[in-house]
Amino acid sequence: MLCEEQHETPSNLYSSRDVLAVNEKSGENPLPTCMEDTAAEGRQEEGSFCQSEEIQKEIKELRRRDEEECRLKQQNVRSRIDQHLIQNGGDLSLLLSQHTVPNEVKCVQLTRFGQTKNIQSDKVPLPLPMKGDVLIRSHSCGVNFHDTMTRNGILDNWVRSAKPPFIMGSEVAGEIVGLGKNVTDLKLGDRVIALPERKAWSEYVVCREEYCFKIPDQMSYHEAVALTVDGIVSHSLLFQMGNLSSGKAVLLHSTPGGLGTLVTQMARTVPNTRIFKITAERMNGKHVESSDHAVHYIERDTDYVSEIRNSYPHGVDLVLDGLHESNFHRDFNLLSPMGKYVLFGNRTTNGGLFDTAKSWLGQEKVSPLKLYEENKSICGFNLRNLLYFQKDRRYIRETFDKVCQMWQDGEIQAVFDCILQFDDFNEALQHVQDHGQVGKVILDPRISKEDSLNEHDPENMTLPTSKKEEENLERKISPDLHEGNEHKHVHGFLGKLREVFSPNV
Amino acid sequence: MLCEEQHETPSNLYSSRDVLAVNEKSGENPLPTCMEDTAAEGRQEEGSFCQSEEIQKEIKELRRRDEEECRLKQQNVRSRIDQHLIQNGGDLSLLLSQHTVPNEVKCVQLTRFGQTKNIQSDKVPLPLPMKGDVLIRSHSCGVNFHDTMTRNGILDNWVRSAKPPFIMGSEVAGEIVGLGKNVTDLKLGDRVIALPERKAWSEYVVCREEYCFKIPDQMSYHEAVALTVDGIVSHSLLFQMGNLSSGKAVLLHSTPGGLGTLVTQMARTVPNTRIFKITAERMNGKHVESSDHAVHYIERDTDYVSEIRNSYPHGVDLVLDGLHESNFHRDFNLLSPMGKYVLFGNRTTNGGLFDTAKSWLGQEKVSPLKLYEENKSICGFNLRNLLYFQKDRRYIRETFDKVCQMWQDGEIQAVFDCILQFDDFNEALQHVQDHGQVGKVILDPRISKEDSLNEHDPENMTLPTSKKEEENLERKISPDLHEGNEHKHVHGFLGKLREVFSPNV
Repeated sequence: MLCEEQHETPSNLYSSRDVLAVNEKSGENPLPTCMEDTAAEGRQEEGSFCQSEEIQKEIKELRRRDEEECRLKQQNVRSRIDQHLIQNGGDLSLLLSQHTVPNEVKCVQLTRFGQTKNIQSDKVPLPLPMKGDVLIRSHSCGVNFHDTMTRNGILDNWVRSAKPPFIMGSEVAGEIVGLGKNVTDLKLGDRVIALPERKAWSEYVVCREEYCFKIPDQMSYHEAVALTVDGIVSHSLLFQMGNLSSGKAVLLHSTPGGLGTLVTQMARTVPNTRIFKITAERMNGKHVESSDHAVHYIERDTDYVSEIRNSYPHGVDLVLDGLHESNFHRDFNLLSPMGKYVLFGNRTTNGGLFDTAKSWLGQEKVSPLKLYEENKSICGFNLRNLLYFQKDRRYIRETFDKVCQMWQDGEIQAVFDCILQFDDFNEALQHVQDHGQVGKVILDPRISKEDSLNEHDPENMTLPTSKKEEENLERKISPDLHEGNEHKHVHGFLGKLREVFSPNV
Repeated sequence: MLCEEQHETPSNLYSSRDVLAVNEKSGENPLPTCMEDTAAEGRQEEGSFCQSEEIQKEIKELRRRDEEECRLKQQNVRSRIDQHLIQNGGDLSLLLSQHTVPNEVKCVQLTRFGQTKNIQSDKVPLPLPMKGDVLIRSHSCGVNFHDTMTRNGILDNWVRSAKPPFIMGSEVAGEIVGLGKNVTDLKLGDRVIALPERKAWSEYVVCREEYCFKIPDQMSYHEAVALTVDGIVSHSLLFQMGNLSSGKAVLLHSTPGGLGTLVTQMARTVPNTRIFKITAERMNGKHVESSDHAVHYIERDTDYVSEIRNSYPHGVDLVLDGLHESNFHRDFNLLSPMGKYVLFGNRTTNGGLFDTAKSWLGQEKVSPLKLYEENKSICGFNLRNLLYFQKDRRYIRETFDKVCQMWQDGEIQAVFDCILQFDDFNEALQHVQDHGQVGKVILDPRISKEDSLNEHDPENMTLPTSKKEEENLERKISPDLHEGNEHKHVHGFLGKLREVFSPNV
């Protein structure tokens, strides 16, 4: 049997660790020996049933050819890298110092816009960084609603211009193993979160330096993915645009996933904030009895305007409108004097966001004079445009730093819905598209298929990706969430979290 | 000669002090003796030329009738007050404890909208407070651009509904000498700034309690007038709506008077703020050489967009648009990502503000989607609507408190253009209408005509209203403005201030 191309696996990976250790110990070849897959190993142990000399010989020959092929592949990839460095410059020494340099990397490809079947796990040549790029060995990839729209071929500017096939994904955290020419702010070994426009769902990711942000030492890669985009958006909506101060009332239409929990967590850091959350029908009942005084849940189809005016006759100070379900005039009128209406474009249920928004807002133009007469503000926030078109890296970096500070101060924490292996991308996307997630949905390129268990089994819904990360996560979760011993494992306290944070959807 | 109705004059008044002292010393009557006017006094001293018994008798008779008339008037007014208290309740004890209770008070009346001649100094019966009102003995009345529009019969809601004659003015500071029924937050003797919708230019002003705000002990009445409206507007534009933070660029179209200087002073409190001030043509030359690095002056008719983009290629973070001269699209496009456009409606040069604004903005509706795509905000601020229609007293009080705190911390200071007597209302209004003022224009009801000197004489342009206030003012002015002895008097250092602050127009 021919060996599969395989590159050095991080030592903290749960799967294949022992196999790797055996190979690492042998150390006979100047180039590393390829590992047999576990099936071949199994076959070897069954040797007592077929100890003929011929079979022994065949196995030896197979191994030799296997090793030879691996050696050639290593030679090829290293010579490709040398060529790349001669032509383009840069520094790939950290990549080259790896035990095995992968010739091909695993990723998630979109072959055609549209259905589920058009997205598939694939292998592509190792990407290499050009001028201004960095090469990241990825540890954690985020799944967001935008990915579902990308898959469906709706929204947005770059998807419209980019033609499949391409690699999916726009959020990834990992360590920098290569630098293109002229990279100035980052160095080899830096732990970063990267927000490339696409191609994030891959074992190795090339990204422009300007879309990468260093993460604090104590922050795990999964936490970085959970906190970056949602954290920057939440912070911008509440503080930069909303200018939230003590004693204000905020109206938030149902925002699932990491964004919903982060907006709530951040709003809670301001004393006496009251958050009105309009929840989906399916959440009926549960929320209303919540013991959380900061958050008031109202079912979507009820007369929430009257309900809010009962306690806030002058209306709310801040409306966060995800562009998808609110009636602009109704919510605008619900604003109190000095109130702010922030449009942030989160998601849409039917058709493209831009199509929806254009038809929805086409007739919704506002006279600035009306704002002047009523002492109101309308603000718009669109992180993708800010990052990829307006390229306001300074703002994004400063805001990310503030988010990290809030995290370090224990004011906010990363909340995960599930951490899945690459091959579960379709389940992950569907989960997000159905707004079923509570907290961040993550694809972990370091988990192999064998380690990943059915997400529908609640006890095994999520897997820790490293002991250290598990500890980090446990440390960050407030103590009251896992007082008992039953919450020692990530999937355990994530299960608990699901209970606790469900109301926040 | 009959005495003129005259009430107790504050002991710190510059004028008539000696005359008053004489009368106070006599103290023969249970009701106070009316003073002769200075002409009568003069006539008395010429007595050596007409010492006939008849003349002596005539003078005695005149005095007796004078005193009798005054006594009757005091009886009348006190009985009117008693009646008022029986019918309406309240507490007028501080008013009644005054040496003289005025039957009539001096004020500035508008008889018809339009020309200068339709506004006149007048006397009206002492106003008395109804339920929820306070009665203020005024010490300082502010003149703002809105007053000129009121006089001209343009703008705004209440002027359109109110028919002349009425008493002009919407800003007054003084002490509370009477309370209507059900006044809860204020008490007799409180020093307040009041923002009645009108009738502020009077020796005694009745105002709803909700429009009155207590001022710090150390703040003079003139300072309160200079800091309140302009301070609240400036603070709202820069911090509440603009959310100004370090390192931002602000575009400010020429804003004369107290508002312009306060916006600049407050913006300077934020590190590394750069203010682009579009100045009137007549200011040509002077400003460009300013040594002030925080403020960059650009002449109105030049290509300021290019000039700003030279140093801020991404544009400005905040545009403050006084609704009067900017081109909305030009300035909106000059906003950087995350930039804010704040419309605050300061003044208009031709026709009414509302007329101008409606024609100007009628075709300038903005799609919120555009804001979303461009990461921009549009905000409107209108203090009058906020105060009189939306009645958001809490916001106004909180913002005023922040302004007072900035003043107490020495971050901002009151700047005066001139402090004039009541009878100079027309000069004051014209000065403001012509945008000629640098700092606040004030009418002081405690200065008599004799004390007030021609404002066009620079050395006597302004007068201190009390020694204490003069000291207060001097103390507040930064030391470098009056290092020499020549600035000991208010008009002296105000002259200096004019030089120093001229560039800020």
